[in-house]
Amino acid sequence: MKETNAAYIQAGDLVLLSGKDRREFMIKMIPGLQFQTHHGVLEHDDLIGQRWGATIKTHLGYTYLLLPPSLEQLVRGIRRTTQIVYPKEIGYLLMKMNIGPGTRVVEAGTGSGGLTLALARMVGPEGRVYSYEMREDIQALARKNLTRVGLANTVTFTLRDIHEGFDERDVDALFLDVREPWYYLAQAHTALKGGGFFGAVLPTTNQVSALLRGLETAPFGFVEVEELLLRAYKPTPARLRPQDRMIAHTGYLIFARALLRE
Amino acid sequence: MKETNAAYIQAGDLVLLSGKDRREFMIKMIPGLQFQTHHGVLEHDDLIGQRWGATIKTHLGYTYLLLPPSLEQLVRGIRRTTQIVYPKEIGYLLMKMNIGPGTRVVEAGTGSGGLTLALARMVGPEGRVYSYEMREDIQALARKNLTRVGLANTVTFTLRDIHEGFDERDVDALFLDVREPWYYLAQAHTALKGGGFFGAVLPTTNQVSALLRGLETAPFGFVEVEELLLRAYKPTPARLRPQDRMIAHTGYLIFARALLRE
Amino acid sequence: MKETNAAYIQAGDLVLLSGKDRREFMIKMIPGLQFQTHHGVLEHDDLIGQRWGATIKTHLGYTYLLLPPSLEQLVRGIRRTTQIVYPKEIGYLLMKMNIGPGTRVVEAGTGSGGLTLALARMVGPEGRVYSYEMREDIQALARKNLTRVGLANTVTFTLRDIHEGFDERDVDALFLDVREPWYYLAQAHTALKGGGFFGAVLPTTNQVSALLRGLETAPFGFVEVEELLLRAYKPTPARLRPQDRMIAHTGYLIFARALLRE
Amino acid sequence: MKETNAAYIQAGDLVLLSGKDRREFMIKMIPGLQFQTHHGVLEHDDLIGQRWGATIKTHLGYTYLLLPPSLEQLVRGIRRTTQIVYPKEIGYLLMKMNIGPGTRVVEAGTGSGGLTLALARMVGPEGRVYSYEMREDIQALARKNLTRVGLANTVTFTLRDIHEGFDERDVDALFLDVREPWYYLAQAHTALKGGGFFGAVLPTTNQVSALLRGLETAPFGFVEVEELLLRAYKPTPARLRPQDRMIAHTGYLIFARALLRE
Repeated sequence: MKETNAAYIQAGDLVLLSGKDRREFMIKMIPGLQFQTHHGVLEHDDLIGQRWGATIKTHLGYTYLLLPPSLEQLVRGIRRTTQIVYPKEIGYLLMKMNIGPGTRVVEAGTGSGGLTLALARMVGPEGRVYSYEMREDIQALARKNLTRVGLANTVTFTLRDIHEGFDERDVDALFLDVREPWYYLAQAHTALKGGGFFGAVLPTTNQVSALLRGLETAPFGFVEVEELLLRAYKPTPARLRPQDRMIAHTGYLIFARALLRE
Repeated sequence: MKETNAAYIQAGDLVLLSGKDRREFMIKMIPGLQFQTHHGVLEHDDLIGQRWGATIKTHLGYTYLLLPPSLEQLVRGIRRTTQIVYPKEIGYLLMKMNIGPGTRVVEAGTGSGGLTLALARMVGPEGRVYSYEMREDIQALARKNLTRVGLANTVTFTLRDIHEGFDERDVDALFLDVREPWYYLAQAHTALKGGGFFGAVLPTTNQVSALLRGLETAPFGFVEVEELLLRAYKPTPARLRPQDRMIAHTGYLIFARALLRE
Repeated sequence: MKETNAAYIQAGDLVLLSGKDRREFMIKMIPGLQFQTHHGVLEHDDLIGQRWGATIKTHLGYTYLLLPPSLEQLVRGIRRTTQIVYPKEIGYLLMKMNIGPGTRVVEAGTGSGGLTLALARMVGPEGRVYSYEMREDIQALARKNLTRVGLANTVTFTLRDIHEGFDERDVDALFLDVREPWYYLAQAHTALKGGGFFGAVLPTTNQVSALLRGLETAPFGFVEVEELLLRAYKPTPARLRPQDRMIAHTGYLIFARALLRE
Repeated sequence: MKETNAAYIQAGDLVLLSGKDRREFMIKMIPGLQFQTHHGVLEHDDLIGQRWGATIKTHLGYTYLLLPPSLEQLVRGIRRTTQIVYPKEIGYLLMKMNIGPGTRVVEAGTGSGGLTLALARMVGPEGRVYSYEMREDIQALARKNLTRVGLANTVTFTLRDIHEGFDERDVDALFLDVREPWYYLAQAHTALKGGGFFGAVLPTTNQVSALLRGLETAPFGFVEVEELLLRAYKPTPARLRPQDRMIAHTGYLIFARALLRE
């Protein structure tokens, strides 16, 4: 993803089109292309050069607002066939696992690529994401999702059963989003540098217990289990109150540090 | 902060010393210096060149583990005289406000510099943090905290009552951590690019209502109010359960987008 | 509601019919009556004398389980045109306001009668519920709901704008489930005995602030504001985890004690 | 506990003495007795006949407010050597297990008697609480706590390892607050009437899984697992916000219904 500091939309930028009907579309600006909505057609060339935040009309007169997408919107907007890691968990694991510009991070499985996308955005051109997946069709989807937002170059995609191990050594961080992560702790440890950051997300308490048992017998320390709850409010100043419903569970986060073998 | 991909501690690196007494220290490796603990003395030169994750003994024989600190630990570890924005909120606002490598972001007030540190780490050398503060002593503390972790170069510190406005234009994102943010919405809007990301954190519902009223009358849209709850578990596989107590409130997050004036 | 200690269904009992299609019906056993479902007909006389927990077949061969309803199911099962107080809040306010056998409690407004039903059940034949409502149609609905479960005798229904005050004096407890409870604090105080329990439920933070302001200027003390969150789990032993979604907000509870005027 | 509908304190009443130092005492009014505080002496005879809500001075001139205690305060105020079930869980289980005037309920273990007290208060003189405990010293403490509030008459205390079973049959409800409730499900089922209410509270997810496994193989149905979170707010109208800290975990509640053996 090209980072634009400028106030104007440029070729290659991702643009979030926001309509009055509250439907949103994410498109990448490519000169010469057209974007078709059921409200009419937009020419990319007409969007390029517009100020961010401007409105534009389709040939049928329907108005769209042109917004830069947030990373949260990019993650939510990917095409998916698998459960994704949610933005609130991603933001928190970035902080806990020290993932930022320059970080080398391993991830498995790739899945639809939601977390991959966020990691790639955050490690930047100086960092690297190594993403492992067993199923070819899923990997293809993730690659498409990353390519669409211009971040595929930051990622090394590998098709493999991680039981065979990871190719990298001394990586800063490694995250497992697989059903039975306790089977791959030796492999994870081999890939991580000393003191490196291990993370995982799991939906059930039984899986958390199984992973904790695994971490106890492997050279890991500083184990933590946490969960995050997000509550949205109705943004009405005179009637401020939480929304009626919320997502109650998106998974338990488990963090640990790789210790050196004695 | 210098990002080290290597498995060995280098001069300039920040090292988290973790003792068996569960006390931790954060020190920056500077050749020739000594670090004094009540358990004895460590020579920086003896730490430089060690593997990350190794243990080292003081001259009195007390053992410390050498770990790379996480961004969460860096933020928690700053010296502070003010309330800081918590890591869970920071991680989430990075996602919601699209703050990553290359982003130009304005922040006020600087406070003790916890958020400043995280923003500086995340925007990287290609990005920039513009941080405003009214009180000189607080700004000095923040600058010290940022210098200590090697991130001060990424930040432009300005001492000013933001009622007078911000110097920047067309920034990607702007975050207000001040008591009465509703008084500075015009200034914030002037600094933001079209569609740019506005964020704020506030402790009371009354302040949230006041800010929402302000946002309604200013050219902002897509307003959201959210709160995050973090629940830690005891990481015991056979007796998995939440910790007895938790922090129940660290503030409400408010997000909006700058709209162009018509 | 007749309390049956016996193991057999008797005339006058409320029976929860639970079908395999997970649909449930609540019916009161009245000799000679029939109950029609889309799965066929049941004769009350065939149910009376059955063991609780037994199954019975309709004339079409569809099976229903015969269960004693819980108070939670009775409250959830009432016909309603208004928002009801939720069972979790009701249970908690019983504890906080000391409502049990023998209590005299005032309530306004009656609404659909969900809270009225629970109060009537809990104060028992030695206690009394005084329930005020302004709208005749709503009161009629509540009376019907209470009659259906055999609890109407415990309740004195009054049709009145409570601005005119309550008829009772020295009641043990008084609960306001109205939009602007701060307008009726003098009336509430006049009805309560010294040290008596005041309670209210409100959906928005602005209303809570308004009520707190009212309580500060009236002779009330020991003010508390609380909210309860209920999280359900999937009851699968090998995959224990919270349900995906939950109700995020059912209202803020406010409690106080009536102080004597000096 | 004698229920007083009157506005005046009578012999036998429980009085909550509330001092300006925010210390509170619970005393039962017994003519002729004295109550000693470090702020001076109070004669019960001087309190009897006072209005509820009145203030009274010790012989040293220190002022106490005379309040009727809530059931929540009574439960919190018991002397305890064991973990108690919290008022929020008690209120909810009353609703879910249909415990009110006239109910016959079995409980094990008695523990310090917090839940016993609440059950005894709620079933009233027409109901009955059968409470089982294995340890004599703990039972003695519970009996003392119940006697102190005048509720011991409603309770049948039995000293027994419940592995040997319960004496009652066809009870309406049965609650297990023991470490390994899954070992006593057959005994519980034998005591419950058809469709009767089973409940338990457990601190860890592993115990919940074990109980769920037990309930799957025994004749129970309609199994539910729930947890309640209570968040208190600072009751300041102009600065309404949650308290900084909260109790994050008081246990998981498990509910089920006894089915008839086929």
